Amino acid sequence: MDADILAVKTYFTGLQQRIVAALEEFDGHAFRSDGWTRPAGGGGLSRVIEEGDFFERGGVNFSHVSGGAMPASATAHRPELAGRSFEAVGVSLVLHPRNPYCPTVHMNVRFFIASAPDAKPVWWFGGGMDLTPYYGFEEDVAHFHGCCRRAVIPFGGEAEYRRLKAWCDRYFHLKHRNEPRGVGGLFFDDLGADGKTDFDTAFGLTRSVGDAFIDAYLPIATRRRALAYGERERDFQAYRRGRYVEFNLVFDRGTLFGLQSGGRTESILMSLPPIVKWRYDWAPEPGSAEARLYEVFLQQRDWA
Amino acid sequence: MDADILAVKTYFTGLQQRIVAALEEFDGHAFRSDGWTRPAGGGGLSRVIEEGDFFERGGVNFSHVSGGAMPASATAHRPELAGRSFEAVGVSLVLHPRNPYCPTVHMNVRFFIASAPDAKPVWWFGGGMDLTPYYGFEEDVAHFHGCCRRAVIPFGGEAEYRRLKAWCDRYFHLKHRNEPRGVGGLFFDDLGADGKTDFDTAFGLTRSVGDAFIDAYLPIATRRRALAYGERERDFQAYRRGRYVEFNLVFDRGTLFGLQSGGRTESILMSLPPIVKWRYDWAPEPGSAEARLYEVFLQQRDWA
Repeated sequence: MDADILAVKTYFTGLQQRIVAALEEFDGHAFRSDGWTRPAGGGGLSRVIEEGDFFERGGVNFSHVSGGAMPASATAHRPELAGRSFEAVGVSLVLHPRNPYCPTVHMNVRFFIASAPDAKPVWWFGGGMDLTPYYGFEEDVAHFHGCCRRAVIPFGGEAEYRRLKAWCDRYFHLKHRNEPRGVGGLFFDDLGADGKTDFDTAFGLTRSVGDAFIDAYLPIATRRRALAYGERERDFQAYRRGRYVEFNLVFDRGTLFGLQSGGRTESILMSLPPIVKWRYDWAPEPGSAEARLYEVFLQQRDWA
Repeated sequence: MDADILAVKTYFTGLQQRIVAALEEFDGHAFRSDGWTRPAGGGGLSRVIEEGDFFERGGVNFSHVSGGAMPASATAHRPELAGRSFEAVGVSLVLHPRNPYCPTVHMNVRFFIASAPDAKPVWWFGGGMDLTPYYGFEEDVAHFHGCCRRAVIPFGGEAEYRRLKAWCDRYFHLKHRNEPRGVGGLFFDDLGADGKTDFDTAFGLTRSVGDAFIDAYLPIATRRRALAYGERERDFQAYRRGRYVEFNLVFDRGTLFGLQSGGRTESILMSLPPIVKWRYDWAPEPGSAEARLYEVFLQQRDWA
């Protein structure tokens, strides 16, 4: 298992570096670099940007943590593993552009090993990426989903892509509002934990998703970054970002795992947007550009 | 039990009216009135203010809901009652002033009955109030805690006051930051559920807490409302309001109960502040007015 962890860790840290380098070139500002260690074991490297030229706030975080008792939030379908000792390695990014015509994006790849005395260690991969537009463009959403699809196809074909796309739609759903967080993308968890997927295939899919991120996102950002916006668009963006906060703090397994396992709070909560507004029982005017988000984009659709 | 529910409901709706009337007089703007019903049973009346003269956002909500299976979040120490059918009546308020020198405040009183076939119904009261300053004043915090203390003393003396004060300190604690939400006040739950407190005493304490709210809060708001503030103070307020969001969405039992039991989302989330900011790994400058909040006020202290 040790050689596997090393291989995963090497890929993850390299992925973080490549993504940050591409984002820095795109933004023109450097990401700050914050290393941290965790008293209970492990540590990480947070790469964070605030008040960039393009990104208002965002982070690309690497962490490698271990612990004596895995929280239930770490695995979707294997609650019997809760309480085992664990090792977790991952890269997680959330980027909030300033321009409301540019979508917020999230990507995560992760690898877990759960160990117990007198039992074979259980390992699995998880990950995915998803897009959250404020003012959407069909072309952008189709591009993002197309990249997701191409990343999965070599690892199980159309059926596997459909499965991870549908899982994403189910996962990034605000139950208390019966509303999707955004337009989805890919989500997977527990890949390999049932012994049916071998390590190379599971790691291969995870790498394919990680490697697809830059091409999935930057062309969209490039197309929309020069669009002019005003107070109205910023206001709607701030309102919709409230949904991002609600999802991440109430439902997101990664956030809850981090906070429950004594993770580094500031690194976990770099996913929260820089400025957010809540407003009572608000709805966009019918026929407005804001209403279009709900009517066209916050719907489960086949985009790829 | 029906006569008891009616008595509690009559008191709660009257309390809501009295509090809203006092707050409207203080603010100069009317609270909007939003009645709602819940398909699964019950409903409520939300009284909400946004963009008032003094209050930037806030609500005083009454609700009376029932359901087939009580979520575990409804009771602190009686998880064995989860799954019973329930009735819940309550008044809950959160007020976010615009002026950063005026504290955010929360008050809640609630009454539950959990029923099961072939078992005696179990009832209990819960409630409390607590204060969250941005720029604190010792005099204000002492006043608030003094009112809390006077509300409890007739119902169990100093020991009972200490118990509810300490419970509040424990409850309104952000574990992931090891930081109190504010300066505390009172918190109680499950009062009567163990059969050791009779209905009249438990209802009496709950009324005493509800009745104490206006005198606990409005003198503070009156003293500080004219204080001049600028961008710096608004910015710090927005940053600190992030902690309020984190607490309410990650830890608050009332919020989770509401969202889990299919409550009315907009009424539950009226507790969230109007404008909030998150910023990576920020800390106030030593010796600043902002640092004083942490050093003097976000500490467990005897204030009464």
